[in-house]
Amino acid sequence: MYRTHNCGELTVSDIGKKVELAGWVFHKRDLGAMIFIDLRDRYGITQLVFEKSLYEQSKTDIGREYVISVSGNVVERSNKNFKIPTGEIEIIVDSYHILNPSLPPPFTLENETDGGEELRMKYRYLDIRRNIIKKNIELRHNLAREVRNYLSDNGFWEIETPCLIKSTPEGARDFVVPSRTNPGKFYALPQSPQTFKQLLMIAGCDRYFQIVRCFRDEDLRADRQPEFTQIDCEMSFVTQNDVINMFEGLIRDIFIKIKGFDTGKFQKFSYDEAMNCYGTDKPDLRFEMKLTEITEKVKGKNFKVFDDAEYIAGISAKNCASYSRKQIDELVDFVKKPQIGASGLIYIKYENINNFKSSIDKYFTKDELQNICDEINSTVGDLIFIMAGEKEKTQKALGELRLEMGNRLQLRNNNTFVPLWVTDFPLLEWNETDKRFYAKHHPFTSPQDISVLKNDPAKAKANAYDLVINGIEIGGGSIRIHDKNIQKQMFEILGFSEEEANKQFGFLINAFEYGAPPHGGIAFGFDRLCAILGGSESIRDYIAFPKNNAGRDLMIESPAEISQQQLDELGICIKSNFK
Amino acid sequence: MYRTHNCGELTVSDIGKKVELAGWVFHKRDLGAMIFIDLRDRYGITQLVFEKSLYEQSKTDIGREYVISVSGNVVERSNKNFKIPTGEIEIIVDSYHILNPSLPPPFTLENETDGGEELRMKYRYLDIRRNIIKKNIELRHNLAREVRNYLSDNGFWEIETPCLIKSTPEGARDFVVPSRTNPGKFYALPQSPQTFKQLLMIAGCDRYFQIVRCFRDEDLRADRQPEFTQIDCEMSFVTQNDVINMFEGLIRDIFIKIKGFDTGKFQKFSYDEAMNCYGTDKPDLRFEMKLTEITEKVKGKNFKVFDDAEYIAGISAKNCASYSRKQIDELVDFVKKPQIGASGLIYIKYENINNFKSSIDKYFTKDELQNICDEINSTVGDLIFIMAGEKEKTQKALGELRLEMGNRLQLRNNNTFVPLWVTDFPLLEWNETDKRFYAKHHPFTSPQDISVLKNDPAKAKANAYDLVINGIEIGGGSIRIHDKNIQKQMFEILGFSEEEANKQFGFLINAFEYGAPPHGGIAFGFDRLCAILGGSESIRDYIAFPKNNAGRDLMIESPAEISQQQLDELGICIKSNFK
Repeated sequence: MYRTHNCGELTVSDIGKKVELAGWVFHKRDLGAMIFIDLRDRYGITQLVFEKSLYEQSKTDIGREYVISVSGNVVERSNKNFKIPTGEIEIIVDSYHILNPSLPPPFTLENETDGGEELRMKYRYLDIRRNIIKKNIELRHNLAREVRNYLSDNGFWEIETPCLIKSTPEGARDFVVPSRTNPGKFYALPQSPQTFKQLLMIAGCDRYFQIVRCFRDEDLRADRQPEFTQIDCEMSFVTQNDVINMFEGLIRDIFIKIKGFDTGKFQKFSYDEAMNCYGTDKPDLRFEMKLTEITEKVKGKNFKVFDDAEYIAGISAKNCASYSRKQIDELVDFVKKPQIGASGLIYIKYENINNFKSSIDKYFTKDELQNICDEINSTVGDLIFIMAGEKEKTQKALGELRLEMGNRLQLRNNNTFVPLWVTDFPLLEWNETDKRFYAKHHPFTSPQDISVLKNDPAKAKANAYDLVINGIEIGGGSIRIHDKNIQKQMFEILGFSEEEANKQFGFLINAFEYGAPPHGGIAFGFDRLCAILGGSESIRDYIAFPKNNAGRDLMIESPAEISQQQLDELGICIKSNFK
Repeated sequence: MYRTHNCGELTVSDIGKKVELAGWVFHKRDLGAMIFIDLRDRYGITQLVFEKSLYEQSKTDIGREYVISVSGNVVERSNKNFKIPTGEIEIIVDSYHILNPSLPPPFTLENETDGGEELRMKYRYLDIRRNIIKKNIELRHNLAREVRNYLSDNGFWEIETPCLIKSTPEGARDFVVPSRTNPGKFYALPQSPQTFKQLLMIAGCDRYFQIVRCFRDEDLRADRQPEFTQIDCEMSFVTQNDVINMFEGLIRDIFIKIKGFDTGKFQKFSYDEAMNCYGTDKPDLRFEMKLTEITEKVKGKNFKVFDDAEYIAGISAKNCASYSRKQIDELVDFVKKPQIGASGLIYIKYENINNFKSSIDKYFTKDELQNICDEINSTVGDLIFIMAGEKEKTQKALGELRLEMGNRLQLRNNNTFVPLWVTDFPLLEWNETDKRFYAKHHPFTSPQDISVLKNDPAKAKANAYDLVINGIEIGGGSIRIHDKNIQKQMFEILGFSEEEANKQFGFLINAFEYGAPPHGGIAFGFDRLCAILGGSESIRDYIAFPKNNAGRDLMIESPAEISQQQLDELGICIKSNFK
């Protein structure tokens, strides 16, 4: 036994006790005749006092981040720190041991550190000692626990599905694992347990969940990880509303337990409503600033941009009529960025009743501008932005501008949370390059209307739903196809030959022959959910040992070369002409 | 909504209610004017009655394992079945829908099935419908939940460690994953999160656990899986007793919560005691029949087998003096099997005081045989077996014979559970082929006495402990090395060059420079723990989608070939001359 207490629990009620503590030397201050040390462990910080005979020795032989154990008496502090639970006491040390010395850490272990991302990742075991990162790890643990409790209490069984499965090229790229005992053959790591959870429904498991590692070999963008964690769920004998109610309950429960407040009932938008009102299928509802379509109101004034446009809409930024030329130019540049791709931005400064400054005032009279402002629900002092063009592209661009204005007006507070459902997604997406449809969700999502799917696949809607919080998609799911004929039809529309479909998904198609129940489910991005609840943008801060944007673990230096013997045993070789 | 209730909850208190149920047609009986159907879901079985206008239709259009939903009234059964909770009621169906038809399943879905292992694995989604397998899946869920609750309540954080790590050839073979974005380089799948959990201790996480998938590319023996699940745990600032107390608490808690009884405090044996008393480091304590050494008592009687032996010991099988020649011959054959490798077996039938039949009665007088029997604590009616030879080999052979006798005497009841700890393991094992030491546990286990390690490594004992239940090793762990110099010394003794050690474990050796706390932990085989608690020998019955002994998943047909495009993207090729 190295300690009688941890560094976070001693308070005034322990005064007079003889205690033993162990931990890391966080701060050390030499006051001449005494040394103060803040001893740190996972639980907190306790102030140690080394005086008299221990002064000289502790002055020289204890350094920063040394691991020490001490024995001493709890006394009341004269100079109390009410910010921490242990701030009213200190320990007068009577003996100590150095359990392990430490080199000086390569960056400071405070919440605000001088260590860059790369250095912190290389020494992640030091980075985690920082309170801010340690709290994230704790949050993740607590969140997982709440999720498991809620789902278990609601009759879900956590069932582990395999990691070594089979490659199915539909979708993102698989990571593969050569099989030594089956030469020339490969396992693949799962992108999700989708087919297995459907098989568990066919197996009669009724309610399944799993907090599960998934893998995607994608070209990594910022804040994507090759391995990530999902809360994966599936239910039998359910409609879309049953699933939505169950998981709205989960998310509300999490907010109550972890954040201490009830988000209330979630709003629900169809995909079309979300696009029309917010220019995105994942609206950030922490602020209003809705898109208003004005296509029919503004045509016929000889303004070619409007007259040629399929779609014209505007947003109104409250109290921004005083924006300078420079500020507006910045926003024009913003919408012209390649990621957004708009050709221009029209503004109306609503300075007063019938008093406007606008980039289109040579085409529109004051009355006409007034009508536009009224249509968009603007009031005096607002700044109106209008965009025109192809419908979906223009909605998306205006949606991006809306978010940018939300940022500028500080309407996107990380401590406010507005969850919502988006439903009625398109079933398919046409890919112009490949000249084929792809499943918007995945090939197992059921269509709302089978006759629309047959006659006009592009118009088919899916029984699919996304959970969005603060503009971020946290989860998505669908009611699945459980009829083998519809599943076959779906594979056909997606361009699978019968042979290909059988090769990749034969086991599932076969299982549909043996009494598949109606079923549906959802999967949540657990890393992202942690980040949202933690109030952060970066999922890396919520993963104990993340990889960088190149998929490398800088601490263990992975991936790495393997030995020729390993390659030989696996029966594979590395192409020397690899470019 | 497909149902108002599930098939396991309706009882006499629901009589008169109008209900809707959905599930699978388990059994169907045609009684002439009415059809009885046992409708099955995860929760139970409810009897449905189709009569009057529904009789003819349901007779022809509903088959076995069809998925149906019904609406009807709960009535009291005349012929009650008190074996199931719903056995006192039935549903008079007034309407039904066929939600999905089914082909007849390829094997019966009863607890005792006519399906062979291979067929069951190919149709695992049907196999899981069998109550006996479904209960295993439920047990596994409940067990995981209890483990998480106990550990979380004791301050452990569940922290996810990466799956894509780096190959470290020490130990078993790694599965590797080619990296597309780092051509020629590979990730490896973890054999255990050993180094990461140690890094989490250095990171100050204090108490860590994880129920985690691990991977070993071994030549599979019966009941080994290439991917398996561990309960992996680590604690800081602990001694061996702290770890043992914490996890004895866990195992006792599991038995109380899952099996409804307290195992009581666990016995503790040193490795040497276990070998001396039971001839194994994982004794089955459900029965006594201890080994008794008699080396010094029986030498010098001109019996060469004894006189030449390093070690002689015996066991006494209660009330087996009446064993026939044939029975004894079977046991002689048993110990001569290559896996056991004994050259022979000596017996003494203790038929009465001073009355023996024995294979050595020409060398020993009745008094001498009496002395041997007394030494081994035999009583009249017992059968004594004696073996002689090299010490460890003879102990192990006698230990195997002891287990065989336990089986024959039905002393190994699957509903009795006797957990124990084995401690003080040897640190190292000498490998005669490679002429080097291997770590018995792993290279991070601390020695009990560093001077023994230096002067006579073969004699060094480890701060290591195993948890054994009913003769099966369920978990093992150790207090780790936290001193960088001892770790370096350990790598040296294991024959690592400094370069090799740094290449494979440099990140850990480096981390030891920055204040590693004393720490230790344990890992439990979760699949095995489930099987033990379920009273089964086979872990496959406790894994939702297991692989067969060749590492193949017969349902999804994995591993499988991948496309040339995938190989090209990964920059690898398959050796055509692979034998």
